[in-house]
Amino acid sequence: MLQSSLFTKTRKEAPKDEVSKNADLLIRAGFIHKEMAGVYSYLPLGFRVLEKIANIVREEMNAIGGQEVSLTALQDKNVWEITGRWNDEIIDVWFKTNLKAGGELGLAPTHEEPFTSLMKNFIRSYRDLPLYTYQFQTKFRNEIRAKSGILRGREFLMKDLYSFSKNEEEHTIFYEKMSKVYHDFFEKVGLGEHTYFTLASGGSFSKYSHEFQTVTSAGEDTIFVCEKCKMAVNKEVREKQKMCPHCKNEDLTEKTSIEVGNIFNLGTRFSDTLDLTYLDDKGKPQPVFMGSYGIGIGRVMGTIVEVLADEKGIVWPKSVAPFLVHLISVGESEEVKTASQEIYDALNAQKVEVLFDDRDARAGEKFADSDLIGIPYRIVISEKTLAEKSAEIKVRATGKTEMRPLADLKKDAIAVLDVF
Amino acid sequence: MLQSSLFTKTRKEAPKDEVSKNADLLIRAGFIHKEMAGVYSYLPLGFRVLEKIANIVREEMNAIGGQEVSLTALQDKNVWEITGRWNDEIIDVWFKTNLKAGGELGLAPTHEEPFTSLMKNFIRSYRDLPLYTYQFQTKFRNEIRAKSGILRGREFLMKDLYSFSKNEEEHTIFYEKMSKVYHDFFEKVGLGEHTYFTLASGGSFSKYSHEFQTVTSAGEDTIFVCEKCKMAVNKEVREKQKMCPHCKNEDLTEKTSIEVGNIFNLGTRFSDTLDLTYLDDKGKPQPVFMGSYGIGIGRVMGTIVEVLADEKGIVWPKSVAPFLVHLISVGESEEVKTASQEIYDALNAQKVEVLFDDRDARAGEKFADSDLIGIPYRIVISEKTLAEKSAEIKVRATGKTEMRPLADLKKDAIAVLDVF
Repeated sequence: MLQSSLFTKTRKEAPKDEVSKNADLLIRAGFIHKEMAGVYSYLPLGFRVLEKIANIVREEMNAIGGQEVSLTALQDKNVWEITGRWNDEIIDVWFKTNLKAGGELGLAPTHEEPFTSLMKNFIRSYRDLPLYTYQFQTKFRNEIRAKSGILRGREFLMKDLYSFSKNEEEHTIFYEKMSKVYHDFFEKVGLGEHTYFTLASGGSFSKYSHEFQTVTSAGEDTIFVCEKCKMAVNKEVREKQKMCPHCKNEDLTEKTSIEVGNIFNLGTRFSDTLDLTYLDDKGKPQPVFMGSYGIGIGRVMGTIVEVLADEKGIVWPKSVAPFLVHLISVGESEEVKTASQEIYDALNAQKVEVLFDDRDARAGEKFADSDLIGIPYRIVISEKTLAEKSAEIKVRATGKTEMRPLADLKKDAIAVLDVF
Repeated sequence: MLQSSLFTKTRKEAPKDEVSKNADLLIRAGFIHKEMAGVYSYLPLGFRVLEKIANIVREEMNAIGGQEVSLTALQDKNVWEITGRWNDEIIDVWFKTNLKAGGELGLAPTHEEPFTSLMKNFIRSYRDLPLYTYQFQTKFRNEIRAKSGILRGREFLMKDLYSFSKNEEEHTIFYEKMSKVYHDFFEKVGLGEHTYFTLASGGSFSKYSHEFQTVTSAGEDTIFVCEKCKMAVNKEVREKQKMCPHCKNEDLTEKTSIEVGNIFNLGTRFSDTLDLTYLDDKGKPQPVFMGSYGIGIGRVMGTIVEVLADEKGIVWPKSVAPFLVHLISVGESEEVKTASQEIYDALNAQKVEVLFDDRDARAGEKFADSDLIGIPYRIVISEKTLAEKSAEIKVRATGKTEMRPLADLKKDAIAVLDVF
């Protein structure tokens, strides 16, 4: 894409009321726009990152047998009254609204109730189980405070998968598979090193649940980390759990972190209240055993910014970057323009995602913008590099810089870049 | 995909309160689920169709230079008060809600205001124009009546593009391009033959706008059609426009139809009120000239069902079908099972999207389900067809049936099917 045609521009400053690092950087770099506190729109660069994260999740969910659906935000009060969760004291982040035709509706802060209700139409016998279904859907949460940028929004995109199993044994097999899938996902998006599998409270559903917590000062949680096995214990269960649940190590380190994913054993909490049963092989009705598995897509994006950014700006991992390459032409000579255009065309022909800074702007401005935007590889073409029939390659994450022949880039840019 | 693992099942009857043909068929075939009146979730088959329609739109919008974003549903009252559209008498389909932290919010029924506001951050000079940006976003409309299935929902997915131009002349060039793109789109999704380009009221924005109206008895609109040039005149402007706007033909036929797309000349209605200006080449501020271009994705899906379905069920055009092929094994013999599995594997290897009805069910039940679901090509394998080393191909739309050698399908199924 030509940067001259991208409608966003970098900004010197984020809105004055913005206090979070992730939103500050993402707004200044043109990835997101603040509509109101806790309510952010995704602009072209930000939308690309969000889609990349979502697509990595989607591949994993499909691979594990998940069937994608899209439920609604508008919620039927009657269903939530049955489970006791319509009450604002039980779920304290409801947005509620009224139908002009009469009646009150809610905006889903989570989707256990509608998924359980939905399955009453399709689950009949043990032969229908287990089954897994998921969606990417906007959640609405009426947070009192919203000062963490896209880490805790009032409206945000979430992947939530629900598992329906015959019994706890069948459930546990899937739950453990999913925990592996989540580990892989956080590795893929560049957070693996900073992310711990934690023992957390099961809330009203079960004794314990598990979370994936990424260590960052921007987090609102406290975990106690076992460095030996990348496990941790959440603060709320620390009293009951003094040692590492895996290796029994008692030497745990306190850290500040953010929950980036959770997996919940829901048991029969919802199938009991909403009467979701199946007939077992003897024809006897049994409650369906459920689990839920969430990942906040925007939250993951914000966490990547918090954890990997440096003093110059954002640093995207290759897997989720809006573009792989930021091509920058320096100088106004015809020679530079022609050589840059040729490399741009060659990269496009090789299906390498490239943002080409073709603007009439000073080199310093282009470099500063590029550092702020955080695309993994920078390829600079100037009269100086052309004198050597080369381009300068710079790796955003490490700052490593080297010259490489234009001919090599035209032949196979990925091979050239992969060496770095 | 194996039909035995698809969690939805066909149903004999839709919910009793469902009166629309599109929702009746889509619910019975397992494409959608009714949460409440006018509020429908998309299940695996329905989600696939919705995504296919959206992806066709996305390709067209990208090709015309549109930049994809995702704005929020939650709306800032202050912005809409400036344009005068916060008032429920001006926009009578608002859902409104309250922040726990204090203040009233709306759920966007449309997005002119936030897009105009957004651009105040990025449009500075004539060099920034024209620009086009679009999204697929959920709209919320508090309709008094919701009896048309997914043709008129209270929550639905819409593509809306907004154009920002220097002046009316520049705007008109894009507006006409877009009208061509819309024509192409309705051709691609199988509605071309039934869809008219109509002259409609410009509402409060301009004298006229244009709509794309598809003729169907399920529609709520009335148009006067010129059969000579596929143009029509909407009822609300009929008084002022007695003849075909294109060929001046006065012999127009009254028909019932549904609006499936609209293109609006917004002029400076929003840039004036929200103060969106650019500096022209003399450094003088000028108001930005705007247009908006909508397509309801779910509505298009529902319209396809209304227009193309027959007495047996849905008939999907190839471009938007959940799968291209419905493979059906008839009979329990090992020979049939093996041959069906081989064809299934071959189709998958050829990247042909196939739903394989591998269930232990009677042939009649499988055929009835297949007719209801409406996948374009049916491939049946039974002992009878195997006796001829063949499969039976049936075209859903025409009912045409012929035998084709298994070997040909294994070699190149698309070539075999394309002949029909």
